[in-house]
Amino acid sequence: MFNFDFYNPTRVLFGQGRIKDIDRRIPADARVMVLYGGGSIKTNGTLSEVLTALGTRHVIEFGGIEPNPSYETLIQAVSLAKQHNINFLLAVGGGSVIDGSKFVAAASCYQGEATEILQSRGSKIKQALPLGVVLTLSATGSEMNSAAVITQKAIKTKSAFFSERVFPAFAVLDPTKTYTLSKHQIANGVVDAFVHITEQYLTYSVNGLVQDRFAEGLLQTLLEIGETALAEPENYDLRSNLMWVATMALNGLIGAGVPQDWSTHGIGHELTALYDIDHARTLAIVLPAMLMERKEQKHAKLLQYAQRVWNIHEGDDTERVIQAVEKTRLFFERLGVPTRLSAYGVTDIQPILSQLANHQLTALGEHRDINLAVSERVLLNCL
Amino acid sequence: MFNFDFYNPTRVLFGQGRIKDIDRRIPADARVMVLYGGGSIKTNGTLSEVLTALGTRHVIEFGGIEPNPSYETLIQAVSLAKQHNINFLLAVGGGSVIDGSKFVAAASCYQGEATEILQSRGSKIKQALPLGVVLTLSATGSEMNSAAVITQKAIKTKSAFFSERVFPAFAVLDPTKTYTLSKHQIANGVVDAFVHITEQYLTYSVNGLVQDRFAEGLLQTLLEIGETALAEPENYDLRSNLMWVATMALNGLIGAGVPQDWSTHGIGHELTALYDIDHARTLAIVLPAMLMERKEQKHAKLLQYAQRVWNIHEGDDTERVIQAVEKTRLFFERLGVPTRLSAYGVTDIQPILSQLANHQLTALGEHRDINLAVSERVLLNCL
Repeated sequence: MFNFDFYNPTRVLFGQGRIKDIDRRIPADARVMVLYGGGSIKTNGTLSEVLTALGTRHVIEFGGIEPNPSYETLIQAVSLAKQHNINFLLAVGGGSVIDGSKFVAAASCYQGEATEILQSRGSKIKQALPLGVVLTLSATGSEMNSAAVITQKAIKTKSAFFSERVFPAFAVLDPTKTYTLSKHQIANGVVDAFVHITEQYLTYSVNGLVQDRFAEGLLQTLLEIGETALAEPENYDLRSNLMWVATMALNGLIGAGVPQDWSTHGIGHELTALYDIDHARTLAIVLPAMLMERKEQKHAKLLQYAQRVWNIHEGDDTERVIQAVEKTRLFFERLGVPTRLSAYGVTDIQPILSQLANHQLTALGEHRDINLAVSERVLLNCL
Repeated sequence: MFNFDFYNPTRVLFGQGRIKDIDRRIPADARVMVLYGGGSIKTNGTLSEVLTALGTRHVIEFGGIEPNPSYETLIQAVSLAKQHNINFLLAVGGGSVIDGSKFVAAASCYQGEATEILQSRGSKIKQALPLGVVLTLSATGSEMNSAAVITQKAIKTKSAFFSERVFPAFAVLDPTKTYTLSKHQIANGVVDAFVHITEQYLTYSVNGLVQDRFAEGLLQTLLEIGETALAEPENYDLRSNLMWVATMALNGLIGAGVPQDWSTHGIGHELTALYDIDHARTLAIVLPAMLMERKEQKHAKLLQYAQRVWNIHEGDDTERVIQAVEKTRLFFERLGVPTRLSAYGVTDIQPILSQLANHQLTALGEHRDINLAVSERVLLNCL
């Protein structure tokens, strides 16, 4: 196992009815900005539950944070926060709202140009406003990590940044808040969590036995509950397990001390940028093709995946690996998530390759050896 | 799954050569007390490595913290800390040293009688000195949790206390620091971690799918590496996995949102108090008998344990459960840990029952229904 640091100070408040407990976690005299997205929290009652919990605190709202949250939108929230002397942020939403709020938290305290936060990948962040989260969609894991991805529309660029300063102080995970989501959103969440796990698990072995078992346990749980969580929106057991899996999938634990891949995400981001395909759906397209392309380099872990996650014990090693990858694809398809570019109307991979070249994504994967030629083979198998 | 809070702000610095990194984690002007146990860290070089890392900071040492650390010893450290205006504690050792240091951290800041910390089970702790850990023995998990157990010799009582104020700020987990431990100590560590897990796993199902998978993964890892970790003291892979399992076994994660038992610990503590049997060995004695006694109440989880952890698929349900418990006992025995009271010279259970009655341990277990009559049946099966 590699040497590693593990640090995650976010306090999770898990379960039905926990929104009221934010009252104990936010200073009584805080001046709070509540950030959210398209406004579904207004119609489904979550916003009023949050406002009730905030009581007599000074509160202002900032709505309209879009999927793939943009610098252009968020910088308005930064102005508003400064203008109102806001000293606590409360993100109510899914990964986009939380990621966006992390940027607002850092930019509101930043002394230079806020774009430097993105350019430095977060290393220039010295302080940030405290941030709380009320999660309404299980997918990205942003509620319990220190990362965010922000889009600069002006230069058509998606940038990730990382800083311990933007770990949420707390995250309310109330599974009932996901009951009103569409099947489309839940399916995306399952796929997103699944691929977060494989990016940290399907690499090469460094004898991280605990990390492997935990990753496998999370994947097994997704296989066990994914389809029924979709079919039964108000099944608390299913939705609570899905929520906890998605959080654990990307809170730093299963990736500590092991190699990480992230090539599927690298290529996937370009598919979103070019064709506006949902992030999770881009992962469902790329992952099976990527695993097949890398079946030699990832052989031992893929075989372990076949055996432990899919319980495949028939056939020779290569056949088992192929079966496991094919079953992965079929799982995504059963969730209603198409796994071929053609299903999204994309038939030409050249624009994608150009985009990868432009963004210098020419050394991806845990071995940094996925160059454009390899990506081309992967993309051909995505058609 | 039950509603739960999960919070664990301890920063883990994992791997060979990490002691030097404490320099970045302790203020440069800190006045540091280094706390340790019997002094093996003096002969094996760990203390000098720690002192080198502390550089020019003002440092005083407090050695001699005993296994089952005592109030009587620790209160001397509290006096010394006050006398020298200590503002940072560094525990170098295993669970006893860390538990003891947590008490010193809290008592050094406490305004009343320090015994009130124990009487209140920690609820009276309002502040504590910051505490760092250099772990030298994998077993108790104290390096990454907020609990401690302290013995008051004067009144022959062991008391646990809990406070978020005593979470270590950081914990260095360098597996090579366990190379010089005896087989006896390593075997105890494996058993201790194993039973920490079963206390949180072998109860009744609340559909905590992630918690179950994680607990099973940790148990499987202990079965996989326990004996070889004993046999190959300088095998880094084995010792590093053992270290990470033991930490994850009791850092709050696998117990979040699920019922917990702790009856084996309850009875085990009395065996240590009466007969000075090592803590881990008391657990190895009690656990198999307890599981057999509770095989109806724990049926579903025991069957799951048999299948997923032990891979037992033959026989009817009851036979599988019995096989799993028997295999657990044999695992402990293979580690060189006897699992019968008679092996420790104890043939009369009456003093143990009296002790349980005196300490009002008459409603143990996840259902609080293990009364003295049940404990008597368990103890008879421990002989």
